[in-house]
Amino acid sequence: MRIDVLTLFPELFETFKRTSIIKRGIDRKIIDIHIKNIRDYSLDKHKKTDDYPYGGGPGMIMTPQPIYDCYQDIEKVSSNPPCIYLTPQGNIFNQEMAMELSKYPQIIFLCGHYEGIDERIIQNIVTHEISIGDYVLTGGELPAMVMIDCISRLLPGMLGNSNSCREDSISSGLLEFPQYTRPYDFLGKKVPDILLSGDHKKIEKWRKFQALLKTKKRRPDLFYKYSLSEEEKKILEEYDKNK
Amino acid sequence: MRIDVLTLFPELFETFKRTSIIKRGIDRKIIDIHIKNIRDYSLDKHKKTDDYPYGGGPGMIMTPQPIYDCYQDIEKVSSNPPCIYLTPQGNIFNQEMAMELSKYPQIIFLCGHYEGIDERIIQNIVTHEISIGDYVLTGGELPAMVMIDCISRLLPGMLGNSNSCREDSISSGLLEFPQYTRPYDFLGKKVPDILLSGDHKKIEKWRKFQALLKTKKRRPDLFYKYSLSEEEKKILEEYDKNK
Repeated sequence: MRIDVLTLFPELFETFKRTSIIKRGIDRKIIDIHIKNIRDYSLDKHKKTDDYPYGGGPGMIMTPQPIYDCYQDIEKVSSNPPCIYLTPQGNIFNQEMAMELSKYPQIIFLCGHYEGIDERIIQNIVTHEISIGDYVLTGGELPAMVMIDCISRLLPGMLGNSNSCREDSISSGLLEFPQYTRPYDFLGKKVPDILLSGDHKKIEKWRKFQALLKTKKRRPDLFYKYSLSEEEKKILEEYDKNK
Repeated sequence: MRIDVLTLFPELFETFKRTSIIKRGIDRKIIDIHIKNIRDYSLDKHKKTDDYPYGGGPGMIMTPQPIYDCYQDIEKVSSNPPCIYLTPQGNIFNQEMAMELSKYPQIIFLCGHYEGIDERIIQNIVTHEISIGDYVLTGGELPAMVMIDCISRLLPGMLGNSNSCREDSISSGLLEFPQYTRPYDFLGKKVPDILLSGDHKKIEKWRKFQALLKTKKRRPDLFYKYSLSEEEKKILEEYDKNK
C-alpha cells in the first residue's frame, strides 16, 4: 500500500516512520510512506499557506492553492485513491472503516491546521472526512499516524498470527478479559487459581465471563449491541445465581 | 503541568516534544514532559519486559515488575496523580474528560504493548483506563500523544484567544460551519455571496444553519443530544419552507 501525507509539519512523521510496526512494514515493502510539505507548494512569495476567513471570525484558514497543487503532484498508483481529511467535523473512525480502507492500493491523508481549510478543497479533492474521536487536537498529524498504524496492522504480512487476535477481539464486540503473567505472586497478589488449573474449558469459560462482565460495566453501548449466544447467556445466569 | 510517560518506545516522543504546540508549552514552562523507558527498570538479565500469559493463549503480556519499579521512580509533585493506562478496554476519551484532566498538576501515562499488561498493575497503580476510540493500535504511544496534545491546549497560556474557539465549537455540541478564504474564485468555484455581504447578522444565521445541517446529516448522534434554542428551531423551519 502506498500512503501519501500532505502536511505543514513533515518532521512530526520522522520518528514515526523509523519505529516499530511502521518501520517493519516499510522494510518488508508492505507499505511505502511519502510525506509532502504543503508549504513547498505555496506560490505566495512568503510561502504563506493561510489567510483570514471570508465573513469574519477568529483564526486563520488554510488557503486552497498550496494544498491543491501539492495534491496534484502526488503520483497516483490507482484511479481516485481515497483522500482523507482529518477533522473533528468528520465521521468517527472505527475498526470497520480501517478494514474497508485497508483494501485500497493507495490512501492520501490531508492534515489540517489552524481553524480549518477552505471548503472548496473539501469539495474538490477530499473523498472522506474522518475524526478519530470527539476531542480537539492541534492538527491532523497525530490522527493520520493513528489511522496509518491501525490500517497497516491489517495488511497481509504485517503481523504474526499471535497478534492478530487483538483485532479479532475488538471485532468480536466485547472487551478483553484480564491477563496475568509471571511472577505468580506480585506484591502479595496472586494469579487467579483457575488460570493454573490446566482445565482449558474452565479457563475459556472464566475468560468469557470476565469479558462479558467488563463490557457490561464499562461499555454498556457495546454490550447492548452484542448478541449473546445461548452459551454466553448461560454463563451470565450461572453467575447471577451464585452472587 | 508535569507529564510523565512510561513507555517501551521513548524515541517515538522525540519529534513530538520538539514540534508545534508541545514545544511552545515546554518553552513557556507551561508543561514539562518526562519520558521514561520501562525497559531500563527490568531486573531480568536480558532486560525482558514481557512473558507468556497464565492460562495460555497467543501473544505476550507485559510483566508487572519493570512497570511498577518505573512508576515508583517517578517524582510525584502531588499526592495520587492520575495514572492513565491507554487501552482499547478503556472508557472512550472525549473533550469533557480532557477538561477534567487539565486541572491536575501532574498526569502519568502508561503505554502498553503486546497483548496487554498484567492485571495486577492495573489494580495497583492505574487510576484511569482510557481508549481514544474503537480501533486497535500497536501501542499506547500515539494515544498518549493524542491525549497530551488535547489536554495541553486547555492549559492557560497555551493558545491565543483566536484558537480557543475550536474547543468552544466541539463543546457546543455542533459541528463547524464551512470556511472560505482567499482567493474569491478558486478553479471556478466562488465564495458564497452572503460571506461578502458585510451583514454580520445574516452571516451568523447562515453559519448556524450550515452547522445544524452538517451535524444532522453527518452526526445524528450529536444532533439528537443537542437541545435547539427557539432561534435555531426557526432557522431550520425557514429552510424547510424554502426547500
